[in-house]
Parts: sequence; C-alpha cells; structure tokens
Amino acid sequence: KNIAILAGDGIGPEIMAQGLKVLDKAQELFQLDFAYHPYVIGGAAIDEKGTPLPEETLAGCRTSDAILLAAIGGPKWDDAPERPEQGLLALRKALALYANIRPITVSRHTAHLSPLKEAIVVGSDFVVVRELTGGIYFGEPRELIDSQAVDTCVYRAEEIRRIMRKAFSIARTRRKKVTSVDKSNVLATSKLWRRIAEEVALEFPDVTLEHQLVDSAAMVLITKPTVFDVIVTENMFGDILSDEASVIPGSLGLLPSASHSEDGPSLYEPIHGSAPDIAGQDIANPLSMIYSITMMLRQSFSLHEAADCIEAACDSVMAQGIITKDLGGTAATSQFTEAVIQQMT
Amino acid sequence: KNIAILAGDGIGPEIMAQGLKVLDKAQELFQLDFAYHPYVIGGAAIDEKGTPLPEETLAGCRTSDAILLAAIGGPKWDDAPERPEQGLLALRKALALYANIRPITVSRHTAHLSPLKEAIVVGSDFVVVRELTGGIYFGEPRELIDSQAVDTCVYRAEEIRRIMRKAFSIARTRRKKVTSVDKSNVLATSKLWRRIAEEVALEFPDVTLEHQLVDSAAMVLITKPTVFDVIVTENMFGDILSDEASVIPGSLGLLPSASHSEDGPSLYEPIHGSAPDIAGQDIANPLSMIYSITMMLRQSFSLHEAADCIEAACDSVMAQGIITKDLGGTAATSQFTEAVIQQMT
Ligand SMILES: CC(C)[C@H](C(=O)O)[C@@H](O)C(=O)O
Ligand SMILES: CC(C)[C@H](C(=O)O)[C@@H](O)C(=O)O
Repeated sequence: KNIAILAGDGIGPEIMAQGLKVLDKAQELFQLDFAYHPYVIGGAAIDEKGTPLPEETLAGCRTSDAILLAAIGGPKWDDAPERPEQGLLALRKALALYANIRPITVSRHTAHLSPLKEAIVVGSDFVVVRELTGGIYFGEPRELIDSQAVDTCVYRAEEIRRIMRKAFSIARTRRKKVTSVDKSNVLATSKLWRRIAEEVALEFPDVTLEHQLVDSAAMVLITKPTVFDVIVTENMFGDILSDEASVIPGSLGLLPSASHSEDGPSLYEPIHGSAPDIAGQDIANPLSMIYSITMMLRQSFSLHEAADCIEAACDSVMAQGIITKDLGGTAATSQFTEAVIQQMT
Repeated sequence: KNIAILAGDGIGPEIMAQGLKVLDKAQELFQLDFAYHPYVIGGAAIDEKGTPLPEETLAGCRTSDAILLAAIGGPKWDDAPERPEQGLLALRKALALYANIRPITVSRHTAHLSPLKEAIVVGSDFVVVRELTGGIYFGEPRELIDSQAVDTCVYRAEEIRRIMRKAFSIARTRRKKVTSVDKSNVLATSKLWRRIAEEVALEFPDVTLEHQLVDSAAMVLITKPTVFDVIVTENMFGDILSDEASVIPGSLGLLPSASHSEDGPSLYEPIHGSAPDIAGQDIANPLSMIYSITMMLRQSFSLHEAADCIEAACDSVMAQGIITKDLGGTAATSQFTEAVIQQMT
C-alpha cells in the first residue's frame, strides 16, 4: 500500500517524522506493508517549485492508497502570489474530498484543560461532518475588481445529498442523531440544504434529524456540547464551527481529521495549523498526527487492531504523566513519541 | 421625542412592557419627554396584516427619533410564505442600519454563570461591530431553482470603509485596539475587507489594527476572550461570532445591541430571540431590554445620567440577590422590574 506523505510547513515536518516512527513500529508489530512517498505542498512547494500544489504532488496523491498531511502555511508566504493554503484547497477539489470528518471527544486525561467548565464538557463525544468541496469556497464568480468584491455560494442538491448520507451513515454507527446546521432563515442555499436533509432523513428512519441555525449552533457548542452526536454542515459554517468545537477538548494538539471522496484515496491531517512560532523546537504535540494515522488505519485500511494498539499506547503514556507542553507537561515531541513506541506491543 | 415601539413576538411584548415601565420612571425622575408609538412587526404583523413589515410600521420607524425592538419569530410561522425574521432584515435594509454594536462584558455578579472557566472570562470587555446591511444577507442573485441554490456575497469598498471607521471610532474611546475578522485566505470579499481595514487604520494612528481569520477568531473568543477590545467583521461572520460571544457572560438575558445608520434613527434590541417556550410565564429576564433602553438613552439622546440611574438600580437589585431564573434566581420578570423601579431615585 502506498501512502503519500505531505509534511508541509512549520511544525509539519517534525510531527510527520514522529508520526511515521509510530507507524513504522506498527508495521513491524502487525506485519503491514506501507510504502511512504513524500511530496512537497504548501509553502515548501512554493519555495521549491513555485506553486503550492506541484503536478508531481497531485499525481502522487492520486495514485496513492491514502494521504497523510501534517500542516500548511506561515507568515513567510504572506506576500506570495499564491498562498500555501491554495495548495490544500486545490488538492481537496482535485481529489473531490467532499467529506471532512472531525471527531471531538473529551478525554478524561485532559478534561481539566478545557477552557469550558469540566461539568459542561465531560462526556462530549461528537463528530463534525463538513462539506469540503462546495459552497462559497469554490463558487464562481469570485472576484475583486477595483472597489467591489464578490464571492458566490452555490450548492447542488446532489452535493448536499452525498454529504447528508455520509453524516447519517456515521450517525447510524453512533448515537443515531444528526444535527444539520444552516441559516435557512436567510440563505437560499440553506433552504435547499434543509430540504435535502429532510429527504435523506427518510432513508434513515432509525436516525433522528434536527435542524439548528448556525448562530444558535455556535452558542450550543459552548453551553451544551454533550447534546451533539453528528453535526453536518456546509463548507464555510463547517470551517468556523469545527474550529470552535476544537477548543473544547483543551488542546488542538489532540485532534485529527479525515477527508473522504466517493472512491479515491482519503486524506488524513491534524486540524491545527503549522504553528510557525514553535516550529523546530521539538515541543509540538505529535498526537494529532498520530491520531490522524490511526484514523487512516481504521477508515482506509480497516486495521483496527493496529490502531487500537497505537491509541492504547498513547493513553498509557499520558496516564503516566508524559505529556507535551500544550497539555501542561514537559515532554519533548520526540520523547513523547519514543514513550509511545516503547509501550506498543 | 418619538420612540417607535416594536414589541414583536414570544417574550417580546412582556419584556417590552417591563422595559417601558423602567423608562417611564426615568422620564418622571429626569423630566424626559418620550412618546411611545407601538407598531406590529414579525409574526404579530403577519397575523394582523399579512406581512412581517407593514408599511405603517416602516413609516413609523422612519419618522421616529429611535426604535426599540424586543424580539421576533417563533415556530408558529415556520410555514408562513414570509418568515417573521424577514421583517427585521427588511427594516435594517430600509433604514440602512449598517452598524450593529454588541458590547460583551462579564459582570462580577454573573461571572460564575459563564460556561467558561471564571479565570478565563473575568475581565472580558469587548464590543462586536457587525456590518449589518451587506454581504451574503442581501447580495443578488439569491435563488433556489429546482436542484441548485445560489447566494451572493458582495461588498463595496465604501460599505467596508464606513463600518471600519465606526469600529475605529469606538476603539478610540476604549482600549484602542481593533481586531478585523475575515477569511482572506479564501474569499475575495475578505481580501477587499482586509485592504480597506489597512487603509482606514492610517486615519487612526492611535489605534492598533490586527487581523484574524474567522475560524481562528471562533477559537480565541473561547480560549482568551480578554484579548479583544473591538472586533469588526462582515454580516454573516458577525452573526455567528456575536452569538458565540454572547454566551460568555453566562446569560443571553443580559445583552443589548444597537444598530446605527449614517443619519437616521437607531434601533435598539436584545440580542436574544423570542423564546416562545417561556413566553407568557413572567419568567424572562427583562435586563437585555432594559439595557437596550439605556443604550438608547446614551447613544441616541446622550442622556447619560438617566442611563446611569437605571443601570445602578439594576446592579443594586442584582447585588441583593433579586435575579431571574436564567441567572439562577427566582424573581419573576415583573418582580425584578418592580425592584429596579423602587431603587431608582
Ligand atoms: C487553510 C484553510 C484554507 C482551511 C479552510 O478554511 O478550509 C483550514 O482552515 C481548514 O479548516 O482546513
Ligand atoms: C433573525 C436573523 C435573521 C438575525 C440575523 O441573522 O441577522 C438574527 O440572528 C440576528 O443576529 O439579529
């Protein structure tokens, strides 16, 4: 199996390196056969090839069985003609990665780190399903001419239907509740969104559908995060709400995500950015990368045993108090990873 | 002076009635001369006149010196051809109420009610300045045809410039920092937004400008709300972020807002909705309405003494432990108001 490795910028290369060490150990223990194929993307690709998504990178991703990406961007490229992030957006679009999945759970090791009161966050366990290739991110016209700018938010029923089905399918494996988030009291696209949500709900009679306006969802995420099971929403709202939700567990350093297409390779990446301010210091938390790898093992390759082994090792290392700085500890990135590898058996 | 009174739906009429009792008392104490002119809007207007913003209502608002609105909407009108909220949107547009101002402060009486840890919220004191008549709320085309829907986000430089100037002017009276929120790594309108922010910053050399991406702002509002002074953003982001921010003080029942045009009457309203589930029970918190009235006294009429008197009375009533249910107390809406009026001298 071929894995495209996109280390990217900032802390990207260091957390990717540590993540792959963990995967190496799993390969050994479980006799796996993953080959790693590194490609440049984002700022690194701008520096090396003059564009954030070089052809070889896209071609390599297309022919891979799964893609691991670490992080992209940084102030260094603020004045570049194309931003590093464009590489990620172009990759999502080219591979039709329409379904972005971000699980949020509050671990008992870290609940005290949440900015929210412990009583509010304990038991939070939900998944944000974000539509990733439509909406205002890609609609045309998008232009800035003289003193007027325009962006266009477009959704076709089919695009909404497939992300809804994804959300309902996930809910079926969980607590069977979907919260569809829109702004149907204002937007035409949200009216269509809500209509299709109702239609798809009929295909999943065992799953409960509720609607929530985006402004209200932004409040409930903070006041009662435990009410959610699966949240499904369009691209822009998903960007905002999934980042808002990501602060609930107390550190962004813990959170992975998956992006799926209908039949091509999936992409797995931490939800945090490239954190250029702490790059190269061996203090970043590699867990978001490690969990991105276990998500890949499960969702692309059904290797649940290997994933369980890695996750159990992470848990036990954290339980020993070996944690990185973002979690209030002192372990270096490499120390933490080393401890995880030692635990894996 | 003529005040247009739009009580609206749900708890709207009861909190408006209580708010006006407080204003009556202030009129008596400070020899003010406000005449109240009630008009229907929203669901009540649909029921009575078949449209959420009847002509008389709009005409009455236009010729007023200020407008007080309580709350709009409810499930009763879910299947109405025009939604109650359209009345509010049409009113904002017709009166060119482009600047929505939402102050968020954490009071020492209520900090413990915040869903966030007290240590994180204590000292929070910022203002969200939301552009209210542009962006995706009003851009054309906006249509839902068969299986495709489109919304359009448009901004002209002039629209951005006037809201920026408003934000910088407010910052000048405060801690002199403006955080402009956009999504300039994706949207054309955000690129224009950021450019105009930079331009306007040159007119206010004593005020610091910083930019923040909307997804990041959604996180920082929760993890470090005390870093903000004035947040300025476009209509849709402002809707989401201001509602998110509104949970910080622990109850929506406390929060007022003002919407200003360039030279017409301003509109003052609580930021919460019509809460149909508790309507008619005399348990809603009237404070958001009372504070909307004190905002009106200050911002439309420079009647700071009267506003101070009302706010001091509210403080002292709360300090006595007379608080409504949302704040953990047992006082009825009318009891709370009565206590405030007794305190006013
Ligand atoms: C980098 C940026 C374009 C991207 C987005 O807005 O989708 C990021 O914020 C994300 O959520 O993955
Ligand atoms: C009622 C609705 C249309 C409105 C908005 O989205 O502007 C409300 O949420 C608000 O924030 O005042």
